[in-house]
Amino acid sequence: MKTEIINIGDELLIGQVINTNATWMAMEMDGSGFPVQRVTILADNREEILRALSEGETRSDIVLITGGLGPTKDDITKESLCHHFHTKLKFDQASFDNVARIFGERGFPVTELNRKQAEIPEGSVALLNKYGTAPGMWFERTSASASGVRVIISLPGVPYEMKNLLRTEVIPRLIQKFRPLPTVHRTILTQGIGESFLSDMIEEWEKHLPSPLHLAYLPQPGIVRLRLSGSGPDKDHLQKLIEKETEKLYHLIPEYIFGEGEETLEQIVGKLLAEKKCTLSTAESCTGGYISHLITRIPGSSAYYKGSLIAYSNDIKIAELGVSEKVLADHGAVSEAVVTEMAMGARKRFGTEYAIATSGIAGPDGGTPEKPVGTTWIAIATPAGNHAFHYLMGDDRERNIRKTALQSLNLLRKAVNNGE
Amino acid sequence: MKTEIINIGDELLIGQVINTNATWMAMEMDGSGFPVQRVTILADNREEILRALSEGETRSDIVLITGGLGPTKDDITKESLCHHFHTKLKFDQASFDNVARIFGERGFPVTELNRKQAEIPEGSVALLNKYGTAPGMWFERTSASASGVRVIISLPGVPYEMKNLLRTEVIPRLIQKFRPLPTVHRTILTQGIGESFLSDMIEEWEKHLPSPLHLAYLPQPGIVRLRLSGSGPDKDHLQKLIEKETEKLYHLIPEYIFGEGEETLEQIVGKLLAEKKCTLSTAESCTGGYISHLITRIPGSSAYYKGSLIAYSNDIKIAELGVSEKVLADHGAVSEAVVTEMAMGARKRFGTEYAIATSGIAGPDGGTPEKPVGTTWIAIATPAGNHAFHYLMGDDRERNIRKTALQSLNLLRKAVNNGE
Repeated sequence: MKTEIINIGDELLIGQVINTNATWMAMEMDGSGFPVQRVTILADNREEILRALSEGETRSDIVLITGGLGPTKDDITKESLCHHFHTKLKFDQASFDNVARIFGERGFPVTELNRKQAEIPEGSVALLNKYGTAPGMWFERTSASASGVRVIISLPGVPYEMKNLLRTEVIPRLIQKFRPLPTVHRTILTQGIGESFLSDMIEEWEKHLPSPLHLAYLPQPGIVRLRLSGSGPDKDHLQKLIEKETEKLYHLIPEYIFGEGEETLEQIVGKLLAEKKCTLSTAESCTGGYISHLITRIPGSSAYYKGSLIAYSNDIKIAELGVSEKVLADHGAVSEAVVTEMAMGARKRFGTEYAIATSGIAGPDGGTPEKPVGTTWIAIATPAGNHAFHYLMGDDRERNIRKTALQSLNLLRKAVNNGE
Repeated sequence: MKTEIINIGDELLIGQVINTNATWMAMEMDGSGFPVQRVTILADNREEILRALSEGETRSDIVLITGGLGPTKDDITKESLCHHFHTKLKFDQASFDNVARIFGERGFPVTELNRKQAEIPEGSVALLNKYGTAPGMWFERTSASASGVRVIISLPGVPYEMKNLLRTEVIPRLIQKFRPLPTVHRTILTQGIGESFLSDMIEEWEKHLPSPLHLAYLPQPGIVRLRLSGSGPDKDHLQKLIEKETEKLYHLIPEYIFGEGEETLEQIVGKLLAEKKCTLSTAESCTGGYISHLITRIPGSSAYYKGSLIAYSNDIKIAELGVSEKVLADHGAVSEAVVTEMAMGARKRFGTEYAIATSGIAGPDGGTPEKPVGTTWIAIATPAGNHAFHYLMGDDRERNIRKTALQSLNLLRKAVNNGE
């Protein structure tokens, strides 16, 4: 079974918008048993769209199209679909009711232009778009392929409208139609280890994964997600296999796993602090507020986060965090002694159970032979005491900041989990 | 003249990596007079690659390929190119010297696998990849099109290697080969106004842009870039036209323009502070450290940035920033009075010339009828006095944080520029 994606929109071809839709759709489809063979990005150009539709139908069983469904004259996907399927637009009452509901909620009357959004090509089935006025459209044709059917689906390009339609309307119908072997997957989140080192550590485990399981590495800056998937006739059996292999993985690399699924490290840490009714403050030097930003991105973080002292200069470390002048002079700002005093200072100053402190040389300047760029100290102050950790990050400033922030959050997570 | 891009890599089709290469390449090519009609993303699959190469040659004058040039057996682009062009690999001395240099610098011997990276298909020209071991490759064929020639170019998928090769090797050769009309463009950066309001404000100006100039909106969260471009035989004339129209734009929306080209707002503010030898501190509530993060992302920011007090709780605003309890009780944390006291407190505490303070309801909770989600106060404390500004942002937490941070930086920029 072959699947391809066609993303339509001028904005995608002049660098106006990064095409994140394709990435998300490919991941979602792949995880549901419909691996994607090809993505095509086109301008809002009738000739190009028609050509891509014809090519797509000769190659694939499933063609997913996004974009070009807006009410303005630039948006010509619907008209092109009519031409391709030799059909014309018809009024769809359910789609119109949806448009009317959305305009009603916003207190606007429905214009003629928006009324047109409720028209769909005859022969297609409308897919209800709860979050927008352009319905999705489902086309079917008989095909000479094994499944005997070919499906062409047109979705709006607005990411959250497309995502909701793909998950709630499209994928369930595709599963019913094509009955791919059930697919089970589980994503394990790791932090603090690069892809190649991780791959070395789990090489033997990966090599002996029982059929039909396989592993995908999904790296993000500072994070590697491990996705374990398998397809087969017996879903229960697959789930048990994945359960067993995940357990082994937890034994292999316990210190690097911080969660599963789609959660972020800052969400997990936030939940943990909220559950334990504990509070947190930070004292950031090299991370310059990035830890604080990650924490406060989470709605409701004011329940557990009290604040931070960003101490970018030594004077501030002394005056505001109570770091002693002598310790600073003896050890330098990037040292175990100073980062520990910073964490203790924040904990006391903000009156919190926990505090994180960072001090490092993020680069590109400021390195010395003894303390090269990338040298980083992190301290965690807890009700039970203080812990300091030393790292050599790398020579890229942005990556150093991000890696240090994530490392700090993971160290805190472990401390809170251990009841320290 | 038609251009298309083919990005090859399994990782692009399972959601492992967002295909930012296509966005960047399309923008760069479009800006150089080679608008891109199509992008195709494929797996490392020989049959699919060969099909896409054939299709690409029938459609386009220029086919740009990225990916699949690594030394491992997954990387089959080079072999597929040989098959497509009915040729075989030959050893390229200059490419090998480059591989040897890179390995030498890292202190590693060149392995057999890496030696193979210096082989390119006979009939192609190697393009020197200064930053990596895989050379770019340039193929030419005669064509029935107006230009009489068709060019197929293969580049590595690693973004900074690809970018350098495209800018320094590929585009200059394409310009020489196809002699597109000279293209001039200029990008004006705006902040503090959404795309649709901006478009209303400059509608008349845009409508009367002299031929052949045209405008593209390139929005990013909190920022709208306006790219003015034109192609024509007389480059000097174009440059004068763009100069004149840009001047008009500066008169139309002076308060929203903060810079030009590829600079960020935090870079511009940083440069300005460094030039004037002034220092900055911040007191952040709703932005939670994001302003501090933006500033400290810039290398060398410690020269002008002293630090921040992230005051997420009212206690901290009182104890650390000297906000009076009575003012807090009378006006609430999200108020002109409190945000002004916060900025004054930071300025005094950190001993800086300037200070920024923010206080707002980022959402999704915490709104009231009088102060709905999105209500935001920003204060700028300067040697000349204090200024407070009120905004109603929106209901998306992440966007509110980003918009408030950028708005703050732009307000500071104006204050410093005005010598306040």
